[in-house]
Amino acid sequence: MSARLDDAIARLAGFNDDPAAGGITREVYTPTYAAALEWVADRMREAGLEVRLDAVGNLFGRWPGTDPQAPLVLTGSHVDTTLNAGRYDGVLGVLGAVEAVERLRSAGVRPRRTIELVAWAGEEPRFGTGCVGSRAAAGELERADLDRLRDRKGTSMAQALGDAGFDPDRLREARIDPATVHALVELHIEQGAVLESQGESIGVVTAIAAPHDFRLTLRGAATHAGATPMDLRRDALAGAAEAMVALERAARESRSGTTVATVGVLRLRPGAINVVPGEVELDVDVRDSDLAAREEVADAIVDAAREIAGRRGLELEVTPIVKDVPVACDERVVEAAEAACVELGLSHRRMTSGAYHDAMIMGRRVPIGMIFVPSVGGISHHPDEQTEPDDLDRGVQVLAGTLARLAA
Amino acid sequence: MSARLDDAIARLAGFNDDPAAGGITREVYTPTYAAALEWVADRMREAGLEVRLDAVGNLFGRWPGTDPQAPLVLTGSHVDTTLNAGRYDGVLGVLGAVEAVERLRSAGVRPRRTIELVAWAGEEPRFGTGCVGSRAAAGELERADLDRLRDRKGTSMAQALGDAGFDPDRLREARIDPATVHALVELHIEQGAVLESQGESIGVVTAIAAPHDFRLTLRGAATHAGATPMDLRRDALAGAAEAMVALERAARESRSGTTVATVGVLRLRPGAINVVPGEVELDVDVRDSDLAAREEVADAIVDAAREIAGRRGLELEVTPIVKDVPVACDERVVEAAEAACVELGLSHRRMTSGAYHDAMIMGRRVPIGMIFVPSVGGISHHPDEQTEPDDLDRGVQVLAGTLARLAA
Repeated sequence: MSARLDDAIARLAGFNDDPAAGGITREVYTPTYAAALEWVADRMREAGLEVRLDAVGNLFGRWPGTDPQAPLVLTGSHVDTTLNAGRYDGVLGVLGAVEAVERLRSAGVRPRRTIELVAWAGEEPRFGTGCVGSRAAAGELERADLDRLRDRKGTSMAQALGDAGFDPDRLREARIDPATVHALVELHIEQGAVLESQGESIGVVTAIAAPHDFRLTLRGAATHAGATPMDLRRDALAGAAEAMVALERAARESRSGTTVATVGVLRLRPGAINVVPGEVELDVDVRDSDLAAREEVADAIVDAAREIAGRRGLELEVTPIVKDVPVACDERVVEAAEAACVELGLSHRRMTSGAYHDAMIMGRRVPIGMIFVPSVGGISHHPDEQTEPDDLDRGVQVLAGTLARLAA
Repeated sequence: MSARLDDAIARLAGFNDDPAAGGITREVYTPTYAAALEWVADRMREAGLEVRLDAVGNLFGRWPGTDPQAPLVLTGSHVDTTLNAGRYDGVLGVLGAVEAVERLRSAGVRPRRTIELVAWAGEEPRFGTGCVGSRAAAGELERADLDRLRDRKGTSMAQALGDAGFDPDRLREARIDPATVHALVELHIEQGAVLESQGESIGVVTAIAAPHDFRLTLRGAATHAGATPMDLRRDALAGAAEAMVALERAARESRSGTTVATVGVLRLRPGAINVVPGEVELDVDVRDSDLAAREEVADAIVDAAREIAGRRGLELEVTPIVKDVPVACDERVVEAAEAACVELGLSHRRMTSGAYHDAMIMGRRVPIGMIFVPSVGGISHHPDEQTEPDDLDRGVQVLAGTLARLAA
């Protein structure tokens, strides 16, 4: 284990807008976030990196290679958080990269390609959409989006940028020319329990699943729970229950074997113990790295809901929310990570990432890969988020080995 | 149809604390309720009745019989409402009884037994528990309950009584000696769609179902919706969905054929589209006039939830809410109501009441019966609550005929 990395993670966790709640709250473009980012910049400088901020607040730290003209190797993640979150999500990929560079330097490595570290701004969806920093770098944000995207309090991203000292009109300067990037690799906690359940140390990501989210609204009749016999009901929740059973079955029977489907939000009206529910909304999330399999499952869920609604005399409305495209990792990056694991004698497995990451955004433009370390109990976005110190260290070792190979 | 009754119902609907919301809000012991009750008292006086208020605000109107010593016939319902309710629930049983008395008088009837009309205070559960007026009359409320029972704003029933000019310490004076009551009959809207769906005019109630309410809490693991494969989930909502399907099946397969089971309230945590639900609460309401059948269904629901939780690695907690005992109607009252229907040539059916009423409370002490008229679409506790004028009139005719028979 690495005392230096553990110490850095603990210090960064101190930049927190809501310590009383038990977790970490550090949303992008807040004064607390700016202070945290300045502390990260100091860590990068300590590691001998050339530090700069781009037009949207992405923080870069550069280790020039011996061939400055060669496309560079990019690595990093993010240091913003959701509300009352854990201390590892994103942070490991930034502070672990600084640690990896320090180890490579200590080992006397002189990379041919420049290695550039990055802390992307706003991976967490403060403004509804996540990955705003990497989206800006990938050229997927327009100036108008900065006015449109708003946080819970109604503050636009343009306003938040301005308040943090950036000029929203310089958005385009944040774009990265894909031709300048040889590969991008991101170290991250798994945020799931696959590695833990398999007893493996490292996940080498082969593809990043993307979500297809939509809302199912079922409408029946809000009648008296005592006075309405079972056969005269149009119970929206009873229909929703059947639809949720069908959703789970559809995901389990997916031909890819990797599709997941979740109802994470359920709203019910009127919501009284003596009234049959008249209306239910289900927010559905379907993900897979296999786009065709994902769409088959999404279609099967909607078809099942339609059949159930028809049979029960309910109205069904389907509202789109988001539909992203999964990204495959680059085989060279995957093989470099696997070679690093083999050299270190670490158990590892190829796996897909169910969560999405900044790497997915950049993966539409440049070759990418990801390295996962185990999450205790699969818990993430929660104060109990935990990765064992030895696993943090293994992740850094594999990242260092992967960077050395990609930059050679 | 009766223009006088329609007019009275419309006028009473004018006593409303929230007319902008579209429905009627007239909670017990408010100034608006007091004004409405005074208006009802005036209607009773117009009909020649001797009017009095008891210690908890139950309003009585007495038509003395020729044999003042004989146990009397009681009839009535309530004129308080839930929030944004309809204009017929309860009101019909009070204003319809005034109308019935006027018609009997006009027809030259002179009852042997005294007929007493009543508007019970607080049938709707302003203080969490409903039927507080009839519970006081039945001797089921103690002084300490008046401090314990509180409304949404925290006002105790004792405080509300005091503010309305009553002395909570005189609670016991509201008790009615069961020996003084020959029978009680309550005219009410069905609040369901059985009569409408069968094309019948009158329901003669043979039993009043009582609820067994309890809460099922399922606890799993709130993990990442993308990063947690289907076979590593402990999804509390997926378990709840299966439990709700089992609940519906258990009610449909009840041996009584009259059991109903409803999940009217569902609470879910954490409630984010990208997080597997870690905890779900289901508030379950099971009702039947057949106590044994009801308890079999309630047991089957809990057993199914337990099996589902065990199989899915979820924790299950079962929390009691309320468990009332159903009440059977008195055969003499039922036969009197049926005889009135036959005489009037009205289609009618024996049925159970799924909703509970003041009559159920008094039914533990004295012989009772109820007369139902159709609710359009089965809608109740809603601004769209509606009973056709001809059906209101038929209900009054049957009530008049029933009172005449019971008081003869």
